[in-house]
Amino acid sequence: AGVRVAILTVSDTVASGAGPDRSGPRAVSVVNSCSETLGGARVVSTAVVADDVSKIKDVLHRWSDIEQMDLILTLGGTGFTPRDVTPEATKELIEKETPGLLHVMMQESLKVTPTAMLSRSAAGIRGSSLIINMPGNPNAVAECMEALLPALKHGLKQIRGDKREKHPQHV
Amino acid sequence: AGVRVAILTVSDTVASGAGPDRSGPRAVSVVNSCSETLGGARVVSTAVVADDVSKIKDVLHRWSDIEQMDLILTLGGTGFTPRDVTPEATKELIEKETPGLLHVMMQESLKVTPTAMLSRSAAGIRGSSLIINMPGNPNAVAECMEALLPALKHGLKQIRGDKREKHPQHV
Amino acid sequence: AGVRVAILTVSDTVASGAGPDRSGPRAVSVVNSCSETLGGARVVSTAVVADDVSKIKDVLHRWSDIEQMDLILTLGGTGFTPRDVTPEATKELIEKETPGLLHVMMQESLKVTPTAMLSRSAAGIRGSSLIINMPGNPNAVAECMEALLPALKHGLKQIRGDKREKHPQHV
Ligand code: NA
Repeated sequence: AGVRVAILTVSDTVASGAGPDRSGPRAVSVVNSCSETLGGARVVSTAVVADDVSKIKDVLHRWSDIEQMDLILTLGGTGFTPRDVTPEATKELIEKETPGLLHVMMQESLKVTPTAMLSRSAAGIRGSSLIINMPGNPNAVAECMEALLPALKHGLKQIRGDKREKHPQHV
Repeated sequence: AGVRVAILTVSDTVASGAGPDRSGPRAVSVVNSCSETLGGARVVSTAVVADDVSKIKDVLHRWSDIEQMDLILTLGGTGFTPRDVTPEATKELIEKETPGLLHVMMQESLKVTPTAMLSRSAAGIRGSSLIINMPGNPNAVAECMEALLPALKHGLKQIRGDKREKHPQHV
Repeated sequence: AGVRVAILTVSDTVASGAGPDRSGPRAVSVVNSCSETLGGARVVSTAVVADDVSKIKDVLHRWSDIEQMDLILTLGGTGFTPRDVTPEATKELIEKETPGLLHVMMQESLKVTPTAMLSRSAAGIRGSSLIINMPGNPNAVAECMEALLPALKHGLKQIRGDKREKHPQHV
């Protein structure tokens, strides 16, 4: 059945029409380019919301509980500015934290630039959906996905309850 | 008096009798083999429970509050499958998080295999007990213990309130 | 206007007068020595409190909400002893976690000594203040600051809402 992916651009600027969405299309093309490695991933939904906790939660809630996406990526809103609240919205919805995904994204991003330490990304599982916050910077999305790629397919299969995937090696 | 260690295998398969406990005996032998480095550690209790939050909490609660174990290791239930709930059970009981132990276990495990990023392990202190989630994979237990070994004895002494251990170098 | 910094030494020993504050003065000199890199930082307040959750919270609360410090560093109380409660006090006040700062401090500290894994430091944003727990060991303060220095100025500007700082590269 493949892996159904949804991508949410979180940005006041884009949501208000004051600027183009550079992160969203880039993330779509990143997912497409590693579709096979992810077990047949395709982006089936994209959306843009303002940096607002309840608006972000509304979309994440719908995509996880109703549309049952396998993978939900958010882009942006993970920094230190007063409007950056994507991790706070995400943490309110997550049922199980996945700190290892954050560790590996941070570890690899720090090799590219020290400002990666300013990412406050959250990640976790809600129902059968894996939700991962990614930075708004278009290049960072590709770097974060590359960091996750060696294990993400296994993780997505585990969420679906595939027992053969239970103990690949380390979990 | 030495370090009293308890080891909990968390597995539906083992708890139901459908398969042997490979992780538990391996963890016992890992602890025995590094007993001296840990300040005279010996395993005084082992148990097996199903992947069930209240059953896991019951054992952890008894081992920390009543039997006052110095170190409690859980094995398994840290992955992404719907039945993996060991970290959730553990976090409900922990009074003080110990994120550095998780960092170093993750950092070292990632050097062995990228699937280590799928570990959702929690760790922390309850009363005078240090509780650490480890993966169910038998080899991973040895790797995680090796990562912790250089500082674990110090940590266990600190929990007992040994003031000489308060500022070894970095805390 | 520069970056206003406050430094809180958390120590029963120092608070009771039983020993000198070695961490506080060292932290002041570390901040002064990297003042320019931080965008004109100067220490405008220092204090000493016992290892007590409500006493720690009182100072952090005043420094963030009333005196609106840009950066608040705590020193000590991050270990495993029963009296170490600085992270617990800090987490009760933080509105937004900043896990990347903790990651980079841990990663760099582990290169110096494995006992760094015993740090339970927390960090995050409250209002317009960034609060960071640092170890009590005087050398560790310098090491942690060095780890943060490449991105801390950016982060402090973001907290003030400077939009030009929003997407330096990775957030
Ligand atoms: Na690392």
